[in-house]
Amino acid sequence: MKYEVYFKHYLALIEKKLEEMLPPASQYPSVIHEAMRYAVLGTGKRFRPVLVLAAVEACGGNIEEALIPACSLEFIHSYSLVHDDLPALDNDDARRGQPTCHKQFGEDMAILAGDGLLTLALQILGWVEPPKRALRLLAEISTSAGTYGMIGGQVADLIESKSDVDLPMLDYISTHKTGKLIKASVVCGAIVAGASAEIHQKILRYGEYLGLAFQSVDDFLDGDGYSVVIKPRELKQKIRDLIAKAKKEVRPLGRKAEKMQALADMLLRRMPKIKT
Amino acid sequence: MKYEVYFKHYLALIEKKLEEMLPPASQYPSVIHEAMRYAVLGTGKRFRPVLVLAAVEACGGNIEEALIPACSLEFIHSYSLVHDDLPALDNDDARRGQPTCHKQFGEDMAILAGDGLLTLALQILGWVEPPKRALRLLAEISTSAGTYGMIGGQVADLIESKSDVDLPMLDYISTHKTGKLIKASVVCGAIVAGASAEIHQKILRYGEYLGLAFQSVDDFLDGDGYSVVIKPRELKQKIRDLIAKAKKEVRPLGRKAEKMQALADMLLRRMPKIKT
Repeated sequence: MKYEVYFKHYLALIEKKLEEMLPPASQYPSVIHEAMRYAVLGTGKRFRPVLVLAAVEACGGNIEEALIPACSLEFIHSYSLVHDDLPALDNDDARRGQPTCHKQFGEDMAILAGDGLLTLALQILGWVEPPKRALRLLAEISTSAGTYGMIGGQVADLIESKSDVDLPMLDYISTHKTGKLIKASVVCGAIVAGASAEIHQKILRYGEYLGLAFQSVDDFLDGDGYSVVIKPRELKQKIRDLIAKAKKEVRPLGRKAEKMQALADMLLRRMPKIKT
Repeated sequence: MKYEVYFKHYLALIEKKLEEMLPPASQYPSVIHEAMRYAVLGTGKRFRPVLVLAAVEACGGNIEEALIPACSLEFIHSYSLVHDDLPALDNDDARRGQPTCHKQFGEDMAILAGDGLLTLALQILGWVEPPKRALRLLAEISTSAGTYGMIGGQVADLIESKSDVDLPMLDYISTHKTGKLIKASVVCGAIVAGASAEIHQKILRYGEYLGLAFQSVDDFLDGDGYSVVIKPRELKQKIRDLIAKAKKEVRPLGRKAEKMQALADMLLRRMPKIKT
């Protein structure tokens, strides 16, 4: 089944909450709120929020209670795309068939809209009850988003020469630039559901394997990153192994984890589009 | 007495804590941590952190317990300077006699260093005890820093035509761009000290008056903003009135508030340097 169909219920909940959490465009000064809404709404697979909800469900929690951290992670992801697209970084004019935020609103507004989304992402975590859960989510998301996490990976990707980058460095870039936020997504689900330490660990390892698989698939499809140092056949096998490991971690959770299993399978199904 | 001498004890505590809260430059990827440290350490009056500690003292609290929110506010202020200095915004090459962050580390690193500082600023609030206090500080600082606060003021300052800006708009820009974070500084002090609702309100109003006075003095010295629509003599009187109102608010707190009184006086003393 297609991702959009299978996760229809999740996606409807997420879109509604994202809309609700963003400042209205009518609020002065409108342009910044329009830019923030443009960067978040209408596009995107919502992969991270879906992961949060799937993990909550796998741990027997209430998905409604996970919508705030789910939005937080999507805001972090969105701000990182807005800033990464800037001329000083990747200098991209289009994203998902639309002009990038700075092409639409100007570089100044794109920088400030990214700042606004990052601030909002961590602000809304303060609205989670009870306070101790809010603080665990804040610690998880802010650490994963910061310079020991996503930003660190982005910096490494910028400074390391593409030609002589080795496997340990590729692992650093993948696990930080993409992996940390994917891992944080499922861990936030476990936190919201109040999972036991044992289940928390399984969820966390699922997130680590899935994050690495996610970046590897991207590299495979784009022909960069891991594709430069690992032969296509071997990279494909590596991805299959990572997906199998991820699925195995959550198997003990039974049918409750079927959405986590499905997400892993869907990631693998992106592969055959490109011939090896 | 000079600011640096009068607040020597506060400044030593703040510098030490800022140093401690920032990631070490040795941590990979070094360049981003060097850029963050460059943006924060070695320069700056630490006006916001000093305000936090002065407000804690005025409310009879323990200043050691306020060092984390004090650092948070300084990190927010520093990130906003790094991003505002970028070519797409104010395009400044120098700040306090040093090259701006993007001149020193490149635009890409300056954008990411700002993001790193903003993330760190809100992350460290999660380390405050007890949890309820941490969440009150997170709410106060994130709201003041966001698009309903500092970012909103910065956007208004960018989009409103300088030539036909009127007094209500100048008030919006001042209270948001500068005022919100100054108000948040003293309010954070009241939160840490567990001030009563009555004292909290006094502290808050002091912060509002002082924030407006702070921006007015800047405009007076720079010859822009309020200076464009208010005659120098009147602007000077307006500032004197604001300072008097701020001081009056905290008078009932007696000697404990002497540092808050001194800060207001020092702000006024910046004035005569320029002839009217």
